[in-house]
Amino acid sequence: MTVHPATTPPRIDLNSDLGESFGRSSLGDDARMLAVVSSANVACGFHAGDPATMRSTVREAVVRGVMVGAHVAYRDLAGFGRRAMDVPSDELRADVVYQLGALQAVAVAEGTRVRYVKPHGALYNTAATDERVAVDVAAAVAAVDPGLVMLGLPGSVALAAAAAAGLPTAAEAFADRAYTAAGTLVPRGEPGAVLDDAEEVAARMLRMVTTGLVTAVDGTDVAVRADSVCVHGDTPGAAAIAERVRDALVGAGVRLRPFVHDA
Amino acid sequence: MTVHPATTPPRIDLNSDLGESFGRSSLGDDARMLAVVSSANVACGFHAGDPATMRSTVREAVVRGVMVGAHVAYRDLAGFGRRAMDVPSDELRADVVYQLGALQAVAVAEGTRVRYVKPHGALYNTAATDERVAVDVAAAVAAVDPGLVMLGLPGSVALAAAAAAGLPTAAEAFADRAYTAAGTLVPRGEPGAVLDDAEEVAARMLRMVTTGLVTAVDGTDVAVRADSVCVHGDTPGAAAIAERVRDALVGAGVRLRPFVHDA
Amino acid sequence: MTVHPATTPPRIDLNSDLGESFGRSSLGDDARMLAVVSSANVACGFHAGDPATMRSTVREAVVRGVMVGAHVAYRDLAGFGRRAMDVPSDELRADVVYQLGALQAVAVAEGTRVRYVKPHGALYNTAATDERVAVDVAAAVAAVDPGLVMLGLPGSVALAAAAAAGLPTAAEAFADRAYTAAGTLVPRGEPGAVLDDAEEVAARMLRMVTTGLVTAVDGTDVAVRADSVCVHGDTPGAAAIAERVRDALVGAGVRLRPFVHDA
Amino acid sequence: MTVHPATTPPRIDLNSDLGESFGRSSLGDDARMLAVVSSANVACGFHAGDPATMRSTVREAVVRGVMVGAHVAYRDLAGFGRRAMDVPSDELRADVVYQLGALQAVAVAEGTRVRYVKPHGALYNTAATDERVAVDVAAAVAAVDPGLVMLGLPGSVALAAAAAAGLPTAAEAFADRAYTAAGTLVPRGEPGAVLDDAEEVAARMLRMVTTGLVTAVDGTDVAVRADSVCVHGDTPGAAAIAERVRDALVGAGVRLRPFVHDA
Repeated sequence: MTVHPATTPPRIDLNSDLGESFGRSSLGDDARMLAVVSSANVACGFHAGDPATMRSTVREAVVRGVMVGAHVAYRDLAGFGRRAMDVPSDELRADVVYQLGALQAVAVAEGTRVRYVKPHGALYNTAATDERVAVDVAAAVAAVDPGLVMLGLPGSVALAAAAAAGLPTAAEAFADRAYTAAGTLVPRGEPGAVLDDAEEVAARMLRMVTTGLVTAVDGTDVAVRADSVCVHGDTPGAAAIAERVRDALVGAGVRLRPFVHDA
Repeated sequence: MTVHPATTPPRIDLNSDLGESFGRSSLGDDARMLAVVSSANVACGFHAGDPATMRSTVREAVVRGVMVGAHVAYRDLAGFGRRAMDVPSDELRADVVYQLGALQAVAVAEGTRVRYVKPHGALYNTAATDERVAVDVAAAVAAVDPGLVMLGLPGSVALAAAAAAGLPTAAEAFADRAYTAAGTLVPRGEPGAVLDDAEEVAARMLRMVTTGLVTAVDGTDVAVRADSVCVHGDTPGAAAIAERVRDALVGAGVRLRPFVHDA
Repeated sequence: MTVHPATTPPRIDLNSDLGESFGRSSLGDDARMLAVVSSANVACGFHAGDPATMRSTVREAVVRGVMVGAHVAYRDLAGFGRRAMDVPSDELRADVVYQLGALQAVAVAEGTRVRYVKPHGALYNTAATDERVAVDVAAAVAAVDPGLVMLGLPGSVALAAAAAAGLPTAAEAFADRAYTAAGTLVPRGEPGAVLDDAEEVAARMLRMVTTGLVTAVDGTDVAVRADSVCVHGDTPGAAAIAERVRDALVGAGVRLRPFVHDA
Repeated sequence: MTVHPATTPPRIDLNSDLGESFGRSSLGDDARMLAVVSSANVACGFHAGDPATMRSTVREAVVRGVMVGAHVAYRDLAGFGRRAMDVPSDELRADVVYQLGALQAVAVAEGTRVRYVKPHGALYNTAATDERVAVDVAAAVAAVDPGLVMLGLPGSVALAAAAAAGLPTAAEAFADRAYTAAGTLVPRGEPGAVLDDAEEVAARMLRMVTTGLVTAVDGTDVAVRADSVCVHGDTPGAAAIAERVRDALVGAGVRLRPFVHDA
């Protein structure tokens, strides 16, 4: 999906994980993040997000003109979907269809539509490299609505499988992550993998959006293509970084828009 | 919804609860019952029915030309949705939307559509008499798709609320239940409330379908209008009764058809 | 259970609901509240509290010398155990036994013991007035360990059923709730039912602990007997009130001690 | 754990997975299998087994003099605990403690005790070869009660870790599985891995119990040491095999006894 052709001014999407409360316990500050992003990855009940939370998140997204995506996950509420699971294809596909449909109905009831899918946590990581899982996720999404966009890592198996299944795709960058000279993410756990200086992060993202370049960990410039930038809101510090990224982009004249043009 | 006008030959729908397994444990003999019914009340994951079970139930329903309905319930897997719960309106509505959407996506992925909604267990009983709950269920369904039919007890608050919300409705009779002279079900627990003689049940249903009359517990005839007859398959004995009902109806020239004409 | 005989100085227990996170989402500030209370009502997984959260809560309670109690609830994670459920006796008893045992093992693994049981949310409210439910809870607890104390409202059916089952009982007052002239809680929803002035709440509790009297909503004095005072920590405001109550009591020489003497 | 010294007559334990229903859906024929086995691996709610099912299974085990063990699993009700999950140590240990404690309380309430632990499904398979997971399970069990026996594959990492943690261990053979010449199970999926001839299975187990030898897939004799023989009851065919094994053993004078001598 070519999302930001060489227009003037440049445009970009900001996405974040939202609706991650369950029952009465809560995670993140959705109200704060919905003022930052243009796309909301809404939890669908399997790793977080009870139906009432989904509904209130979607409702607020509609009010703010934020695009709604399905943040599908392994069925692992206790582990927040972060634990790798070896789910057979028929079960995984049914799980993705189920979650996606649940959010679609919530969206319809709130006057909007689900426009994209982004796997969450362990499913995101597995689908990025494991072809069987990537094909399962893509097939499930395509079986429900082939117009849905798959959001993922550029160059990932997840996006390749989605494209092969006929789905449009969108690539995302991570605001607070370092890149290697090859354009891949520096693995968590390695020194410098996660950035926490709001000014630095904001400047990096502004440069990436306007020039397509990011400074890699080895100091060289690397091309990073992104239709969307993922920002986090699960801690007050993360939300502050996200706000700084948004302010830097807007201040430089970048237009923040969902990566689906008519969304 | 006028479902069986005075046609020749008469027609009726048979519905049953299906897809009620979860994980590896199972309930009922779906394959057997799908050969009996014309409509399948498919569990949506809250009282039973994991996504893979939902998918296989819907797939088999498609093969057999059986119409698919959403059997929405309270979130109570351990209690099989049979325990009354005092769920606030915003949560109940979101729960119904969620379940309905999940099954809709499963249906779409299998090449069919959800055509009706039937509340399950404690939600069925509560919605039959409690206006607040009936309105919540109807509003949730209407918010997702106002073309969906609400299936329920004739004269119930559930159907009245559905009609008030603009939904088409369909009335069901219970094959194995006795009726009072007023045309209501004899409450479970009272003597003779549940019928277990297959021949008697089959003869009763054939008479009801062809004449609109049922013999009440006091021996008088009572008019019972039904667009669908609910049969059970959760025990081998119940399934045998269901098969006998079907055979009696078909043998007498009654056409078994979904209560939605174009389904 | 006579917990605070006319000793010098007076003593009281402070209890609060803790360990109410699930998965990655969280509720309340446990670390802050564990510095306030002498007893922790630990969620057991049915309304909140995944096993890892239970373990970390109990571990921290041990470090701080806080007594551990089982906060048993209806199985209702999505509704946080606040929704009344009509659970049959055999299921309710098994549910209470299950939760209690789970926390007992967590406690043993952390070098302590569960000393009391306090029903949570809707189960607390129902057991306070519904004899069938109160008897079920008491019977379940007594079947596991007849030495466990039941903590509840003074004069409630819950404590009467517990006593009848041979369990020791402890009565609790609510720091931030108004009392009627009859010594019962002013129902939530009525004007003035919930108090939010930290100084007033602290002064009330200090008076209650030292004199046994509370000013009722009609201005009269009413006797309120309590072995423990329940304070809340689910919002920053509530936690601040709890801290003020503690400071006022300690400042006046009241000793804060678990209501089980050898705990 | 030396369980069957060279006594006359020989003795052996039969174990099976029980209590695997959840909600109203069911799996296996517990009543039938409780007449076969001397040890019951009782599901603890994470892969199957709601609390009321646990209680009724334990109650019936007590009536029949069957020893109770905790069949602990990954938290995966939808996948029946058969899906490998990458659960961090702190979470896995807490999960095992939780399940074990829940069953302990159920057992106490029914007048018995949990005597052993057997991991279920994917956790069984992983703990058999993955030292980190085996150590986690063993540490969790030892933290609750170091007198509990760990039941598992002879020579497995699971039993080694249990022994290292100070737990007694017991080895099990599988009645319906073929063995390699090295004494390991022929992997499922390979030809002849699973045996379904009741007479052959019964004769094999009788030979193993009386001589310590089993015919391997290559026709050679291999020594298989077992304190217990695992039989299945999840299908009518499997239960029939289990009954045939029992009858053959009893008919030959073998005493069926729990592998814990005083159980």
